Amino acid sequence: MITVHNLENSQSIRILWLLEELGVDYNIKQYYRDKETSFASDEYRKIHPVGWAPTITDGGVAMAETNAIVDYILDKHTDNSLRPKEGEQGREAYLYWFHATQGSLMPFLVWSLVLNRMDNGVPFFIKPIVKALTKKVRAQFVAPRTDKLLTHLNNCLLNNQWLAGDTFTAADIVMGYCLEGLDARAGEHHSYTHITRYMSDMRSRDAYKIAMKKNGAFNPILD
Amino acid sequence: MITVHNLENSQSIRILWLLEELGVDYNIKQYYRDKETSFASDEYRKIHPVGWAPTITDGGVAMAETNAIVDYILDKHTDNSLRPKEGEQGREAYLYWFHATQGSLMPFLVWSLVLNRMDNGVPFFIKPIVKALTKKVRAQFVAPRTDKLLTHLNNCLLNNQWLAGDTFTAADIVMGYCLEGLDARAGEHHSYTHITRYMSDMRSRDAYKIAMKKNGAFNPILD
Repeated sequence: MITVHNLENSQSIRILWLLEELGVDYNIKQYYRDKETSFASDEYRKIHPVGWAPTITDGGVAMAETNAIVDYILDKHTDNSLRPKEGEQGREAYLYWFHATQGSLMPFLVWSLVLNRMDNGVPFFIKPIVKALTKKVRAQFVAPRTDKLLTHLNNCLLNNQWLAGDTFTAADIVMGYCLEGLDARAGEHHSYTHITRYMSDMRSRDAYKIAMKKNGAFNPILD
Repeated sequence: MITVHNLENSQSIRILWLLEELGVDYNIKQYYRDKETSFASDEYRKIHPVGWAPTITDGGVAMAETNAIVDYILDKHTDNSLRPKEGEQGREAYLYWFHATQGSLMPFLVWSLVLNRMDNGVPFFIKPIVKALTKKVRAQFVAPRTDKLLTHLNNCLLNNQWLAGDTFTAADIVMGYCLEGLDARAGEHHSYTHITRYMSDMRSRDAYKIAMKKNGAFNPILD
């Protein structure tokens, strides 16, 4: 049986949500972050050679990296519509959003977080210099790219309930975490009407609610 | 037929390499970066709503995002061993490296590049302050995570010729670009013996050489 090594405030929530959507049995082992550094504990880091959340174990297998875990689990549970098969309706949109969420949107969100930490982690007398610099990186690199992806997402959601069309898929699970992260930071996406509707649909799913309950308090750290 | 919209010094090279490994016909349309900003041209940005390299078109379909394009192409060409199927030997290692390369390693490389640009893009009199700050971000965030992934990679390559075992897969194509990027920056991986051997094997592949030749001069910008 799969054990989700569930690090608080981490991407692990996606794996709980996926397993709840599938309705399969699994174990949760709970871990906490260091109060000062927010890093995972040494115990967590030993489960997999790389040691970041999420990590699962399944018999002798330890698997890390969100999208790899999603594919690993969907390889084992095929009787569902969470990953459209080759040639099926929605496959292309699924592939695009499944990969673009983790390969493009997520890194921009982490950038945004680290730039904020750079602003706040310096003595007050050099803060203006640092803020001018991080502002430039945000304006030239992070913000236009994040906006471009969110605009594309918003446009796609105008005529589609979910990312791959009428059917909810694992791409929505991967995206959901990013949007919760954006929402936790002052609702940065609130100008995107269709994304707001989409988040409401997402949050109303039973599997999402159960995963959130099992996960406990949730403040996505986005690392 | 697939057209690769090939932006110079970009991740597009991976798509050329994949198509050469498959031995299928395709078109290349060449684009150049702005000499000052290094951004793609407006013409490039119009092919897909998001507009970053790589992008391909295929009939009425425009597809972006490296790993989505890889999966899209491998959906169409199944008579090969470039993507191990569910339950096949090497599938788990394939999934891990295919996703971890683009979802974790690649963002760290981009971080490293942007931090270098931050160092060099400020007037000399504030350079010491900025360098102290970027050094801290490198030391606390970027370098330990990059090292952890490269160490894991190096260990995996001790007993495996390729990422998924004895058989070359698309995960190696995705990884290859990252390693060329690292190599172009003063051979940062050179302490990793097995990675060096792996790069040599990669570079000796006919498909790689042909893709490099069709691509022209290559200086990976890693964005």
